[in-house]
Amino acid sequence: MTQPPLAVTVVAQGAMGAGVAMRLAGNGVEVRTSLAGRSRASAERAAAAGMRAVDDEALVAVPIVLSIVPPAEAIATAERFAAICRRTGARPLYADLNAISPETAGRVAAIAEGAGMAFADGGIIGGPPRADGYNPAIYVSGPEAPRLSVLAERGGLDIRVMDGPVGAASALKMSYAGITKGLTAVASAMMLAATRAGAAEALHAELAQSQPQLLAWFGRMVPGMFAKAYRWEGEMEEIADFVGRDRGESAIYAGAARLYARLAADQGGERREIAQLEAFLRQGAAPR
Amino acid sequence: MTQPPLAVTVVAQGAMGAGVAMRLAGNGVEVRTSLAGRSRASAERAAAAGMRAVDDEALVAVPIVLSIVPPAEAIATAERFAAICRRTGARPLYADLNAISPETAGRVAAIAEGAGMAFADGGIIGGPPRADGYNPAIYVSGPEAPRLSVLAERGGLDIRVMDGPVGAASALKMSYAGITKGLTAVASAMMLAATRAGAAEALHAELAQSQPQLLAWFGRMVPGMFAKAYRWEGEMEEIADFVGRDRGESAIYAGAARLYARLAADQGGERREIAQLEAFLRQGAAPR
Repeated sequence: MTQPPLAVTVVAQGAMGAGVAMRLAGNGVEVRTSLAGRSRASAERAAAAGMRAVDDEALVAVPIVLSIVPPAEAIATAERFAAICRRTGARPLYADLNAISPETAGRVAAIAEGAGMAFADGGIIGGPPRADGYNPAIYVSGPEAPRLSVLAERGGLDIRVMDGPVGAASALKMSYAGITKGLTAVASAMMLAATRAGAAEALHAELAQSQPQLLAWFGRMVPGMFAKAYRWEGEMEEIADFVGRDRGESAIYAGAARLYARLAADQGGERREIAQLEAFLRQGAAPR
Repeated sequence: MTQPPLAVTVVAQGAMGAGVAMRLAGNGVEVRTSLAGRSRASAERAAAAGMRAVDDEALVAVPIVLSIVPPAEAIATAERFAAICRRTGARPLYADLNAISPETAGRVAAIAEGAGMAFADGGIIGGPPRADGYNPAIYVSGPEAPRLSVLAERGGLDIRVMDGPVGAASALKMSYAGITKGLTAVASAMMLAATRAGAAEALHAELAQSQPQLLAWFGRMVPGMFAKAYRWEGEMEEIADFVGRDRGESAIYAGAARLYARLAADQGGERREIAQLEAFLRQGAAPR
């Protein structure tokens, strides 16, 4: 006895969306996506991940839509799907898995529900699914979230249904990312400042002696940030909202957003500060 | 053959100054201090640490003066000693070991040198000296810094003379403290935000699973911050200066300063947010 095939729409940009699609497709799920307005490279990536490009009507004729986009595009993506659903009368479950504040998640919920869709909040902790079997944790919350368990049962994803309202999964994602990506910002800011002040060698030596675990953590996290800094900027702004702009510490995340914006430009340009960060971290490894 | 006794003046408030004085006194150094305007409790702490209260003339009739005060008082302390030296004609080496920016260290140097004193820059990494023999690393820099080696040879301190100008030791201290105390601010901000959003339990569980080393580090550093938050506020402002107020990431430290200011008031008052941080960190230890 075979079940009817499961079809899921994944709105994806970048490695996370492609990895989630690959895991689903590898487990026999039909993964649909839209390539309207996307580049030929995007189309090739989507095909490589097992996604099938479909028209608007087929895009919403599924039980589940997953939104996996940069934080700044979460609202526009929801509005686009709401418009399609109003036109076609389709009513999929719309799950927003993006790194957005609980407040933004509430706005996305209102847009989805205003078009008759059910809504689930979500947040992804970890890197994209890999061929070696690695899966990130996909936390989901809200009354409709249990319906996403099918993506674990039949799609091979690590779905964790939280006992909380819409916003709970986003709050977890914000606070976790605020720690890991906030720490990456703090480390990068201080490595650059020490380098400018001629104290890079002394700082590396002192960290190696008294904080070896932190230094090793920086060696993994900081270089992994360079290519993602453009996306982390928006995520830091969401975390500043999550803290509450009236609380003084929200400036920590506004400052981190500005650092990541500058590093994203540097990564796409001269790579001057990126090279300083690489040189700082290389100190321990290379013979001197 | 015995050497003549070494006398050192320590301008101290709090545990670090008292610990340094205790280590010096324990090694036979005569430690002088001033108690003008200080409380009876301060006088008792000074005596317990082996410090002898002296008048202004005796205060500067020593080869070395160590300034170990909250960052916001570094300038005023230097001005006070400059005035005494102008009056008495004494010319001790004035070493500023405070957590101040290289720019502030330059201002302190100008004040000291303007009164005829030699100057050395310094920064202390680690906690106060302890009876079990633990010593923090005292980094010193500038052309006069080698004269402080006597505090290692005869005073039992861990003095590390850097090969750099005035400002180098402060830059090291700033960048090191910017990492450890910046991370403590990031962790505290996110634990509080997760608690407000009802996600404290989920965040603790996810950290315990995927970032156990960071969680253990928070368990050591965050509770140790409560009683020092009042001092860390000024230190964060110095680090914002060190980064440069024109650089976006300086807001990270301005935001951390505001968080520590609020937590310092809470520690001295209702202990509402302090209790939330304690409850967050207790989750792993207590049976549930």
